[in-house]
Amino acid sequence: MLSLQVEELFLPNGFVTVPLSLVYTPGVASVSSYLAKHESEIGKYTVKGNFVAVVSDGSAVLGLGDVGPLAALPVMEGKCALFKRFANIDAVPIVLSSKEPQVIIDTVKAISPTFGAICLEDIASPRCFLIEEGLRKELDIPVVHDDQWGAAVVSLAALTNALIVVKKRIQDVKIVVSGAGAAGSAIVKLIHKRGARNILVCDRAGIIYKRRRGNNQYKESLTKITNSQNISGDLKKAIKGSDVFIGVSSAGIVSQEMVASMNRGAIVFALANPTPEIMPGAALAAGAAVVATGRSDFPNQVNNALAFPGVFRGALDHRAISITSNMLIKAAENLAGLVKKPTSEKIIPSIFERGVVKRVSSAIV
Amino acid sequence: MLSLQVEELFLPNGFVTVPLSLVYTPGVASVSSYLAKHESEIGKYTVKGNFVAVVSDGSAVLGLGDVGPLAALPVMEGKCALFKRFANIDAVPIVLSSKEPQVIIDTVKAISPTFGAICLEDIASPRCFLIEEGLRKELDIPVVHDDQWGAAVVSLAALTNALIVVKKRIQDVKIVVSGAGAAGSAIVKLIHKRGARNILVCDRAGIIYKRRRGNNQYKESLTKITNSQNISGDLKKAIKGSDVFIGVSSAGIVSQEMVASMNRGAIVFALANPTPEIMPGAALAAGAAVVATGRSDFPNQVNNALAFPGVFRGALDHRAISITSNMLIKAAENLAGLVKKPTSEKIIPSIFERGVVKRVSSAIV
Repeated sequence: MLSLQVEELFLPNGFVTVPLSLVYTPGVASVSSYLAKHESEIGKYTVKGNFVAVVSDGSAVLGLGDVGPLAALPVMEGKCALFKRFANIDAVPIVLSSKEPQVIIDTVKAISPTFGAICLEDIASPRCFLIEEGLRKELDIPVVHDDQWGAAVVSLAALTNALIVVKKRIQDVKIVVSGAGAAGSAIVKLIHKRGARNILVCDRAGIIYKRRRGNNQYKESLTKITNSQNISGDLKKAIKGSDVFIGVSSAGIVSQEMVASMNRGAIVFALANPTPEIMPGAALAAGAAVVATGRSDFPNQVNNALAFPGVFRGALDHRAISITSNMLIKAAENLAGLVKKPTSEKIIPSIFERGVVKRVSSAIV
Repeated sequence: MLSLQVEELFLPNGFVTVPLSLVYTPGVASVSSYLAKHESEIGKYTVKGNFVAVVSDGSAVLGLGDVGPLAALPVMEGKCALFKRFANIDAVPIVLSSKEPQVIIDTVKAISPTFGAICLEDIASPRCFLIEEGLRKELDIPVVHDDQWGAAVVSLAALTNALIVVKKRIQDVKIVVSGAGAAGSAIVKLIHKRGARNILVCDRAGIIYKRRRGNNQYKESLTKITNSQNISGDLKKAIKGSDVFIGVSSAGIVSQEMVASMNRGAIVFALANPTPEIMPGAALAAGAAVVATGRSDFPNQVNNALAFPGVFRGALDHRAISITSNMLIKAAENLAGLVKKPTSEKIIPSIFERGVVKRVSSAIV
């Protein structure tokens, strides 16, 4: 029986190490015949078991927005390179000519027999929610929108250690999340699932409350787990007296005055990229106890690359058919646990630290 | 500006040779921003320019038939390995969960921005014709169903040299093609375009003639360029008095008696795999002058792998938006020309011969 792995297919020197009669007709027919009767062994004899499609419609690329599929392609390639580098996963970029949710669902469903998991990437909200939900219903392989769940896992891991540094409990603190797109929504859902009970979410129009004019169904559903007192107002009002600020929104929207209005031992995650909601120096000067950003040139980089390689490694290794929020919480805890003694300057591991992928992947079972 | 090629993505040791800040956020954003304004340079800065999807629904896999997408996957991987080995093309297998022509067209259209060309593979006829036609209308990248056109190019190349050996002209000879599926139909179309004027095509029901009961539209359209006298009858009747037999049909259906009924200097291509329509020894004993098969263990192997690497290499290099039959005829002539002095035992180059890919690719402009 012939086992062809993708490394052999893509050897940079173009050298195929097995005879042509095995790779191609007639030899390969024996693999096909075998698999036709033993489909469950597909992962053993084909690329499928280690193969991930990184799928994007190019509608929400990094900080650039809707640049379209062609301009999105290098970002997806970069993601594939990280999959390989950090988790030895063979990933291919797939950029799409349509932004229609149903077309995207149908397309990914059609190509899904090829892959062991699907990574959705840089798809604008709220369409990304509909697409992820639709695909999870249709497919028996994991579908993860990394802009949502990668961000949520790493934020929760960072928050876990930041709370240790300031000696507070997640159940007790008041948390403000700025940004109700893919990342913001997933962060809110995951920290709520983990025990946070006092959360306000803000978008450009201010605090999100029940039946606010213009709420889409996804924003409305966030009010079921946030803002129990149904407060309205702006970000400044939300932040006042809070313990934690998590920004996944826009450059420079948080002032020093706003940080100074937070409780003692304030935690400020200013994750907007490349320019944070407030620069770390300014936040610290205004009284923040712990500051994190998305950047590698400051301490405490909250970077999706800490999560997605391990999440997909675990999903493939354990042949998970779906990934639950409990698995993601466990992944965040494992990630946080890699920092033995959290300090204000070290609440999260570096993505190059040994054990990151292994700890995260062991949570996805 | 960062240029990420697929070799870097898939380096077997997982080593990325550029800093993370370039491969991923924020560096890669500069490539995306640039491409958003200069889409025509996409091939320079992404995988697209050297990237081929090998797409199958698993409905007509090798000699195995409809084994489904999972069992078809190793065959597509083998094809990808050959693309890499022979033409340094980065190809990925894409197997589909649907056999519906419109779903396949929509799916390939949706993923097409990712690729420089599409190779359709092992899709049952007559659906393969509809799908290829549909995609060619929709896409601005080449779409080639290799079971059709690869087989046709290599058969025409072999025929060209076989006719030199027996000193006959394609315009004059009577040709019988057995098999009216993907390969047979394309062979008929290409040899007709090249000048053959006396062709009979047979399927399981015998000679195909105008308005034969049960003809689908594709078989009916073959009668416009074959069987001008509208003869009916069986394969035995068709072969009698013919100069050339090209079989892409079933094992053992040609008897020695049938070969003996052909004209002097008979050419017999018994290309059914793995068991030919008649074994070479039997055909030669019955009087055939030149015999070819699809097998590597006999002289004159007519193998698609002689054509597709070069066809796609040329299409990608010249950014062809479609591939015409004139290009394919030229490719066949170039391929035939690699054999300096054709003999009955050597009418076609080996796929390992130097220059095969280059000669074929230079025809696709």
